[in-house]
Amino acid sequence: LTATTLGEIHAALGGEAVARLAGPADLPIARIAPLHAAGPDAITFIAQARLAVQLQSTAAGCVIVAPALAEAAQARGAALVTDNPYRYYAALTRWWAARSRIAPVDGVHPSACVAPGVVMGRGVSIGPMSVVEAGVHLGDGVQIGSHCHLGHGVVLGEATRLAPRVTLMHGTRVGARGYFNSGAVIGADGFGFAAGPQGWEKIEQFGGVWIGDDVDIGANTCVDRGALEDTVIEDGVKLDNQIQIAHNVRVGARSAMAGCVGVAGSTKIGRECTFGGAAMILGHLEIADRVNISAASVVMRSIRQPGTYSGIFPLDDNAAWEKNAATLRQLHTLRDRLRALEKKLA
Amino acid sequence: LTATTLGEIHAALGGEAVARLAGPADLPIARIAPLHAAGPDAITFIAQARLAVQLQSTAAGCVIVAPALAEAAQARGAALVTDNPYRYYAALTRWWAARSRIAPVDGVHPSACVAPGVVMGRGVSIGPMSVVEAGVHLGDGVQIGSHCHLGHGVVLGEATRLAPRVTLMHGTRVGARGYFNSGAVIGADGFGFAAGPQGWEKIEQFGGVWIGDDVDIGANTCVDRGALEDTVIEDGVKLDNQIQIAHNVRVGARSAMAGCVGVAGSTKIGRECTFGGAAMILGHLEIADRVNISAASVVMRSIRQPGTYSGIFPLDDNAAWEKNAATLRQLHTLRDRLRALEKKLA
Amino acid sequence: LTATTLGEIHAALGGEAVARLAGPADLPIARIAPLHAAGPDAITFIAQARLAVQLQSTAAGCVIVAPALAEAAQARGAALVTDNPYRYYAALTRWWAARSRIAPVDGVHPSACVAPGVVMGRGVSIGPMSVVEAGVHLGDGVQIGSHCHLGHGVVLGEATRLAPRVTLMHGTRVGARGYFNSGAVIGADGFGFAAGPQGWEKIEQFGGVWIGDDVDIGANTCVDRGALEDTVIEDGVKLDNQIQIAHNVRVGARSAMAGCVGVAGSTKIGRECTFGGAAMILGHLEIADRVNISAASVVMRSIRQPGTYSGIFPLDDNAAWEKNAATLRQLHTLRDRLRALEKKLA
Repeated sequence: LTATTLGEIHAALGGEAVARLAGPADLPIARIAPLHAAGPDAITFIAQARLAVQLQSTAAGCVIVAPALAEAAQARGAALVTDNPYRYYAALTRWWAARSRIAPVDGVHPSACVAPGVVMGRGVSIGPMSVVEAGVHLGDGVQIGSHCHLGHGVVLGEATRLAPRVTLMHGTRVGARGYFNSGAVIGADGFGFAAGPQGWEKIEQFGGVWIGDDVDIGANTCVDRGALEDTVIEDGVKLDNQIQIAHNVRVGARSAMAGCVGVAGSTKIGRECTFGGAAMILGHLEIADRVNISAASVVMRSIRQPGTYSGIFPLDDNAAWEKNAATLRQLHTLRDRLRALEKKLA
Repeated sequence: LTATTLGEIHAALGGEAVARLAGPADLPIARIAPLHAAGPDAITFIAQARLAVQLQSTAAGCVIVAPALAEAAQARGAALVTDNPYRYYAALTRWWAARSRIAPVDGVHPSACVAPGVVMGRGVSIGPMSVVEAGVHLGDGVQIGSHCHLGHGVVLGEATRLAPRVTLMHGTRVGARGYFNSGAVIGADGFGFAAGPQGWEKIEQFGGVWIGDDVDIGANTCVDRGALEDTVIEDGVKLDNQIQIAHNVRVGARSAMAGCVGVAGSTKIGRECTFGGAAMILGHLEIADRVNISAASVVMRSIRQPGTYSGIFPLDDNAAWEKNAATLRQLHTLRDRLRALEKKLA
Repeated sequence: LTATTLGEIHAALGGEAVARLAGPADLPIARIAPLHAAGPDAITFIAQARLAVQLQSTAAGCVIVAPALAEAAQARGAALVTDNPYRYYAALTRWWAARSRIAPVDGVHPSACVAPGVVMGRGVSIGPMSVVEAGVHLGDGVQIGSHCHLGHGVVLGEATRLAPRVTLMHGTRVGARGYFNSGAVIGADGFGFAAGPQGWEKIEQFGGVWIGDDVDIGANTCVDRGALEDTVIEDGVKLDNQIQIAHNVRVGARSAMAGCVGVAGSTKIGRECTFGGAAMILGHLEIADRVNISAASVVMRSIRQPGTYSGIFPLDDNAAWEKNAATLRQLHTLRDRLRALEKKLA
């Protein structure tokens, strides 16, 4: 059912204005496959020049390549030649998904529990066992999977989709075209307590969560509601799985975070930043635009300049690590001893 | 609906015994707001002396301040003067929430699945799609959100509340006044396997989870059941989101953990400890009372003395980090070379 | 109801072929308990020689010991003497659980939502509020807890069990005898985006997740679906809680990961590896068989040799850490200064 032809793909993705078709338009294409596994019925791509050597061995029906590889690609079969093969491949996956994805049934599943007065646009679907509380607004084409919870007053913009089991606590507002993976929890209470004589005293959290357009949220990722104002995720932000965004954080437009990142409370992150997996950002900091934090690095101070920042203990075999770690604990004494020697020799 | 007056707030939070009211009792207050965003209808607070400079610019109707700032605060408008403005603010949020929160409907939602013989106190509410198995006891005023699962024999003390989608596996016992955020999983199997010739062999986990009074559990946080005895979270403990507490751990009263912390099996943590985000505590350790672990630090040995402990690789620009990391891998040879020089010069 | 006798245990676990019974077969055993808490009605075990001193003080009815401790154990009461007491204890827990666990009711709970045409083996149970979509195959003895979601075409092998609230997205295939804890999300979208002029452009994820036999998955653990091919978890893998496995990863047979581990995209992990809690493995790496990564260590390069590898910043009191961390940021200058001194003295 998903089989197509090379010509159909070429036309659907913008024709010659986007890519040059070098090969038969009627070539049958049954799947998208990675370079190493692509057979004659598959289309594949080369996004990195270092993979060009695999051109000779791939059995792919068609390869999407940059102009520099056009000749080599055509020498072995059909090719689509375009300036940015990776973006072309990305567009191909979206076109392919749109025509092959099993569409949810429009309307509210009979087992769902939807409060009276919920406002729904055209083509909304709500899956089995979901709960939608009063005051919710759902834009056109919103899709809600099974076991979702939308608290009072939640707003979802048009074409935003929730996978099964997404929890949006009361007042969460989300823009258009978002996609939220399973297990995401948006709008849980921020972690706020005052120290009292008998222990911690709860600070109730009255802010909400505001999420812009075109935001993806990963599985089991959390974005807490703000204390008094909103936690904000701006347009085009992409969050991977298992991320923790604390209360009052702002993540600037088009920033992206890999899995297991944590951002502590009230930190403001600029636009177009990237965070490697398990990077940890402490609270009340400011991170400028276009800052890249390496995986597993800890940000303890505000960062004012764009650039790439790292702080990772190098991995070593355990015996070597133990020796270095032991020395590290006395590092400042090494420095003092070195200074003493320098004086002696001065 | 939530608007009030300054006098009503003052009276509700303990009157002159707790704070001195300097300003008109009939001042209308419509919201609590942060200092920078508070308008004439808002009450705000100053918890840190360094923010006192903002007193001049805020348009807040009333500011909660410490006695040292009373004069400056009154010079600009109404004030509530109290020894601990942050605690006063915390109490204000709780009072405000109690009067403005949408109360769940008493009783069992018709879509919930509650086993015969479940014992319920007065004023219990069970939300849609929740499942409550046999032998469960729910104290007065317990609130259970949608999509919760309470396994056989779960016990919840009075006024404990579960947000939507909380899973309490069989036998979990929780005290009074707890609050559990969405996605929490309490009582999943501890990670126990014996190495066998064909691979890992499961060790079934027969212990439970015992949680005291006044415990908050964050979104998507896990507390595993014990192997033979209970995993224990004592009174007043506060756990943020995405935390992992392994089997047989004990967390002492009033300890608090920020997001993404992990505690490995059988570790015993004292009272009134704090753990910064993503701190990792290895297994079979003992941590004394009043130990503070910095964010992202790894605890590999027991800690016998109160104090603050850290172990974080300092962040740097990537080029500098690479040079330092490369040197770090040879750190013990640096020490040896230094020692050789010292001998030569001795 | 779960009380038994020592003789019954001995017989059930293989008789004299596996362990020597030294004590009365009719000794009543009511529970399994840890060494320090075992009373006369309890069976316990000693897995580590350093615990042998506790033999004298334990009140346990029976102790499982290695031959080296047989004499000392028998001097105080009944004993089961076997080469590997820990494995014997593990087998005992499995036998005990099989006879004492509350069995789920066979069949589909009336509140579950099961699509027409789902194929079910004998003895399948599906809990309340679960959703099973079209094309799902469930082997004999599969048990599905409450609030689970099984997307289109999911396959579960015989005797695989899902705790409440497990999400298996469309096309996920799981072998036999697996156990998945609550909150696990298998088959969420891999994190794939291409950089475009207007921001990140989604790469749809067409691969699935393939999970072998005898795999345990922890609470709130995620395994993402592959981009074009499957993410693969081989036979006998054990994953603890809060783990993130990104798209296209392969985890080799019988490897085990403790809580909070993260593995980035396309990394291939060998067989019989172990990963301590919160270890982080970057993407596109290869890890050989029998590699052990210490807790909280970051793997940035492929590892070709079996062995134990570590990279953890040593914890220290905060003042000492600050001094060392400050020096660490200038470590390469220390090296240069040392080299200069060496030249001077050469």
